[in-house]
Amino acid sequence: MEPHRLTATQALHKIRGNELTVEDYAKSLLKRIERRDSIVKAWAYLDPVQVLNEARRLDRIPVNRRGPLHGLPVGVKDVIYTKDMPTQHNSPLYEGSAPQVDAASVLILRNAGALIFGKTTTTEFSSTTEGPKSRNPHDQSRTPGGSSSGSSAAVADFQVPVSLGTQTGGSTIRPGSFNGIWALKPTWNTISREGQKICSLNFDTLGLFARSVEDLALLADVFGLEDDEAPLKQFVLKGAKFAVCRTPIWESAGLGTRAALEKAVALLKIHGAQVDDIDLGPDFKDLPQWHATVQSTDGRVSFLPEYRRPKGKDNLGPSVVEQVENTGRYTHADQLRALDGIAALRPKIDAIAGRYSAILTPSVVDEAPLGFHTGSYVFNNIWTALHVPVINIPGFQGKQGLPIGLSLIAPRYHDQQLLKVAGEVGRIFESEGGWKSKL
Amino acid sequence: MEPHRLTATQALHKIRGNELTVEDYAKSLLKRIERRDSIVKAWAYLDPVQVLNEARRLDRIPVNRRGPLHGLPVGVKDVIYTKDMPTQHNSPLYEGSAPQVDAASVLILRNAGALIFGKTTTTEFSSTTEGPKSRNPHDQSRTPGGSSSGSSAAVADFQVPVSLGTQTGGSTIRPGSFNGIWALKPTWNTISREGQKICSLNFDTLGLFARSVEDLALLADVFGLEDDEAPLKQFVLKGAKFAVCRTPIWESAGLGTRAALEKAVALLKIHGAQVDDIDLGPDFKDLPQWHATVQSTDGRVSFLPEYRRPKGKDNLGPSVVEQVENTGRYTHADQLRALDGIAALRPKIDAIAGRYSAILTPSVVDEAPLGFHTGSYVFNNIWTALHVPVINIPGFQGKQGLPIGLSLIAPRYHDQQLLKVAGEVGRIFESEGGWKSKL
Repeated sequence: MEPHRLTATQALHKIRGNELTVEDYAKSLLKRIERRDSIVKAWAYLDPVQVLNEARRLDRIPVNRRGPLHGLPVGVKDVIYTKDMPTQHNSPLYEGSAPQVDAASVLILRNAGALIFGKTTTTEFSSTTEGPKSRNPHDQSRTPGGSSSGSSAAVADFQVPVSLGTQTGGSTIRPGSFNGIWALKPTWNTISREGQKICSLNFDTLGLFARSVEDLALLADVFGLEDDEAPLKQFVLKGAKFAVCRTPIWESAGLGTRAALEKAVALLKIHGAQVDDIDLGPDFKDLPQWHATVQSTDGRVSFLPEYRRPKGKDNLGPSVVEQVENTGRYTHADQLRALDGIAALRPKIDAIAGRYSAILTPSVVDEAPLGFHTGSYVFNNIWTALHVPVINIPGFQGKQGLPIGLSLIAPRYHDQQLLKVAGEVGRIFESEGGWKSKL
Repeated sequence: MEPHRLTATQALHKIRGNELTVEDYAKSLLKRIERRDSIVKAWAYLDPVQVLNEARRLDRIPVNRRGPLHGLPVGVKDVIYTKDMPTQHNSPLYEGSAPQVDAASVLILRNAGALIFGKTTTTEFSSTTEGPKSRNPHDQSRTPGGSSSGSSAAVADFQVPVSLGTQTGGSTIRPGSFNGIWALKPTWNTISREGQKICSLNFDTLGLFARSVEDLALLADVFGLEDDEAPLKQFVLKGAKFAVCRTPIWESAGLGTRAALEKAVALLKIHGAQVDDIDLGPDFKDLPQWHATVQSTDGRVSFLPEYRRPKGKDNLGPSVVEQVENTGRYTHADQLRALDGIAALRPKIDAIAGRYSAILTPSVVDEAPLGFHTGSYVFNNIWTALHVPVINIPGFQGKQGLPIGLSLIAPRYHDQQLLKVAGEVGRIFESEGGWKSKL
């Protein structure tokens, strides 16, 4: 197998076993990128010479001083600071901007031996919903989703094994689904968001992309994610209890997602799990509006500095300007009702989710739509607001043969348990769900 | 009056009236610093040449293109990024670090025409409680408080008119009190904390220091702080209703604070206000412990990147290491109980505070103690956790003749109302409270 095809876990195994140098691995990925970049356009910044220099530097590190991710190439969304590359937020206000400092997440990866490969495309500040230039690698007439567009497309297209994204509404789980890869939005504030552009202080979460659940688990370990109780060594599907939650906005679900969810429920049952339908009930009915309120009122604060720059307003997307100018006319009373309302729901969702191995719920409305609007986040934003961990599991497909994933959800700070459960569930979804990547 | 003695409001008036150039103003401050720096030691980074160049650049800007803070010198706590100066967090891990990017707060100030003067000292990452080198300008054997040590000392010592600090526990209000100056900890997340080192994502708040309430109001306006209802043009003390809250940790209060609070209550009454004693009741009893739990568990995430750096642990203060290593053995269950418990109290304190013009409460245990421990934050951390705005009003003194301030508190997003009320209250406290700066 060509190195670029390897998962992170497989590649690290080969590097540790002296079967693969970091340089050769990087070369294989760069070759893949060279071949595919004109189609997929996943990168906002990539310097092959810099990548190879860094790869050679890593190869020279003595074996006994290598970290757990030694030689692992990572794509980094271009709203996250990297000390040796620009961070431009897909904003003309930050063209060429290069803060000589690593974000917390990048620092942890670098100290674990990762090879920071390049910066991946994003919508403007992870906030807008049009563009960027990137294409869905499975169908270039479609969006890869966003705002973590490049991070998800690059992983799906075998250009890097793993990458960092962010999620404020649905910016990790949605592109995970659209590209047919694994994605984890961990519990809020389990990984430091220092050095990652703030959209919404209350919701922004670092997200992870990979092509296998083992790779997500590898990263989760390095980032220090720990549950109170160590999860079972082996999660057994037979006899396990799942909830399926169609959410208050189920009527938005397209045929692809409806079929995927029905198939998923059937598969879980076939494999011996119990699946209960749950309704979140009236307490949760305002949650979508509350998410919108907090995102907008938080954005007003976050983007004021850019708005105030010379010609700032002219260089910001209309939806960013609307947040700063409070076009939605949100009062602080609205804002507090939303903030306090959401806060009160968090222990409630923990209690509900705690009764099950996980909650199964849609990741997206349907397969990736035509064009380059990043798609709807209605099936993601409520979970982001609740701070619970969410994993996108690929395996299903829509009418056009494009991938559709489903989300599993656990109570806050049960990320490791969720990874274990998702591993078993994913084995079934990926083998029996019906979708296979043709890339 | 020598320019360095002017408040921000006075100085800006003179600059606008062509009575003072930014250069002459800066020179006056630099002269003051030259004379006093060996005693007060408020600066982590200050380059007089750079300051004067920037002052001259500002003087050259045509009058019609000047911002509302044109020429206003601002000291910036050294945990806040400034694109043209290092940001070193009082940590050997960040010696010489200079991230070439402005924090959101600095960007807003710069675009309003402020003169970013230099970086003020901080305890390590605003997190530890010993040091830095700075001295209380009123008595060099005493701490100026912390962690915003330099920002508060420099303003009290007439070295800059205003400065930026931060507060996670009591790092703005406490040094405000110890130095006899005005300090505002606004409602959480009213000013973007982008580019400000994260200690606790849930609590960190940008803080402001000044020598007059007008100056705080000036900054609050530039930072876009707005209440839902515009506050009364003139707040009248006579007939107004205040609450005095001794808090659940009143037994910690020293004689100085006890006397200050009694005097303050008497003054308010003399001037025609009604003052009700309030007890927060049993709901609030766990708040101090909850604050400690969240600060520590948040710190575990925030400081993990530094801990993981080569020799990271050896270069971090013991209390920072304790957070990362979770020496307090906090579980996520403890953490969630604290997070959710605090969240549930926020609307409750809003309702309580909403019945009064403001809540009067201690800022500190007593006047600044001898030595360079930054002092106790027991009278601050509960309000920080509740996200409510807090103003320190100077005016009282302790047994050693050092300043003691008191806090006024309003519901969340009533910062402008709080400034109005504090203005009237402060006029009385400053003239009749008994303390006058001898600097």
